[in-house]
Amino acid sequence: MNVETCFTPQGYPLFHKPNAIVVVIDILRATSAITTAFYNGVAKMIPVANLDDAKKYKEQGFMVAAERNGEIVEGYDLGNSPFGYMNSKVKNQTIVITTTNGTQAIEAAKIADQVIIGSFLNMDVITKHLKNENKDIIFLCAGWKNKFNLEDTLFAGALAESLVLKYGSDTVCDSTLAAIELYKNAKHNLYEFLGRSSHRNRLAKLDLERDIKYCLTPNQCPVIPTLKENFLIKL
Amino acid sequence: MNVETCFTPQGYPLFHKPNAIVVVIDILRATSAITTAFYNGVAKMIPVANLDDAKKYKEQGFMVAAERNGEIVEGYDLGNSPFGYMNSKVKNQTIVITTTNGTQAIEAAKIADQVIIGSFLNMDVITKHLKNENKDIIFLCAGWKNKFNLEDTLFAGALAESLVLKYGSDTVCDSTLAAIELYKNAKHNLYEFLGRSSHRNRLAKLDLERDIKYCLTPNQCPVIPTLKENFLIKL
Repeated sequence: MNVETCFTPQGYPLFHKPNAIVVVIDILRATSAITTAFYNGVAKMIPVANLDDAKKYKEQGFMVAAERNGEIVEGYDLGNSPFGYMNSKVKNQTIVITTTNGTQAIEAAKIADQVIIGSFLNMDVITKHLKNENKDIIFLCAGWKNKFNLEDTLFAGALAESLVLKYGSDTVCDSTLAAIELYKNAKHNLYEFLGRSSHRNRLAKLDLERDIKYCLTPNQCPVIPTLKENFLIKL
Repeated sequence: MNVETCFTPQGYPLFHKPNAIVVVIDILRATSAITTAFYNGVAKMIPVANLDDAKKYKEQGFMVAAERNGEIVEGYDLGNSPFGYMNSKVKNQTIVITTTNGTQAIEAAKIADQVIIGSFLNMDVITKHLKNENKDIIFLCAGWKNKFNLEDTLFAGALAESLVLKYGSDTVCDSTLAAIELYKNAKHNLYEFLGRSSHRNRLAKLDLERDIKYCLTPNQCPVIPTLKENFLIKL
């Protein structure tokens, strides 16, 4: 069970291995929103990387979530605020979703055998699943427009720390070592640690402090979304 | 004076800005070797990204340094051990150099206005230079085959910490924040901190512990190599 961490979707082809499990991570907020959606009874989600595809689905009558730069794209039903999915309207629905970074990361990982959606909200069930599967693992951080970001890395560090400390998983990957080290510094107060981070500040300007605090609170949604063909379903 | 850190040559185009100074960082060992070379009187270095180009120079009678995967490529004069450049034979010479990662990073940065070569060996003169120039700064880590590595990131963190703490430079770049945080954890014993890192272990297998310790010792070579057209010269 080797653990590697890829900081951007652009880098994924360098990490790709047959048989590895890819955990896609976009803490603020796509993978937190997707986890919340399935926990609240969404049946299926269709991640699409671009707005053109999202528009086609919208025209066919689908419920469509579209976010760019932190805001709901005009004319769409939802963005990527997790609170948008805590609603009886989403129950048993199929929802199409496109976001600035998260759905790009899912797109990059599509060639992998198993892709699962990770966030602090489903941290413990993800850790147990990875332990049980006992395969090589790639944490794929969505980042911000193919640049490194802190919050995704901290979650990779949280998972890696559990796997290395609790289960004796081995790693020689420098990015995973860095993620563990950063998580050690941050874990006593993730929100405060992220105080100077670019994305927390970007969202704070959009008055999304409530989203940020929710997305950093572990284990509120013990469910694992996974990719089957081009759909996300509950594992 | 905005500071950004790019973890791989592949990522550089996303960070490129006109007028920014790029500090190329390949601690183990290309930029440490280049810094050492100029400190020991080398007149000029010609960085080339591939072995084909290196071979052409060799055939023209140039002194050529060629390293791949930590070892001197057969048939060449030097590798990227800094100790190879502490030699009167290199004085006033022009040396062609190609390495696994460092020269790829120089190649990526060539489009920048000013490119300088950074390592722990010339840390303080680099910091002073950046402060005096008062321009935007991009730390370009060479990494390992376009993956993140720890030692380059630690040096970016060391420079960034100085610029932010001593000189009040502002940064909102997450990768720079991460580099500073990692350097804080590492600075009391860089060698020990890198104990589990992939590259230290790679070089240790090649019996290069002496190189590693040298490359992590600050301010032994107060000289700044810089790129002018396609050549490196002393600033």
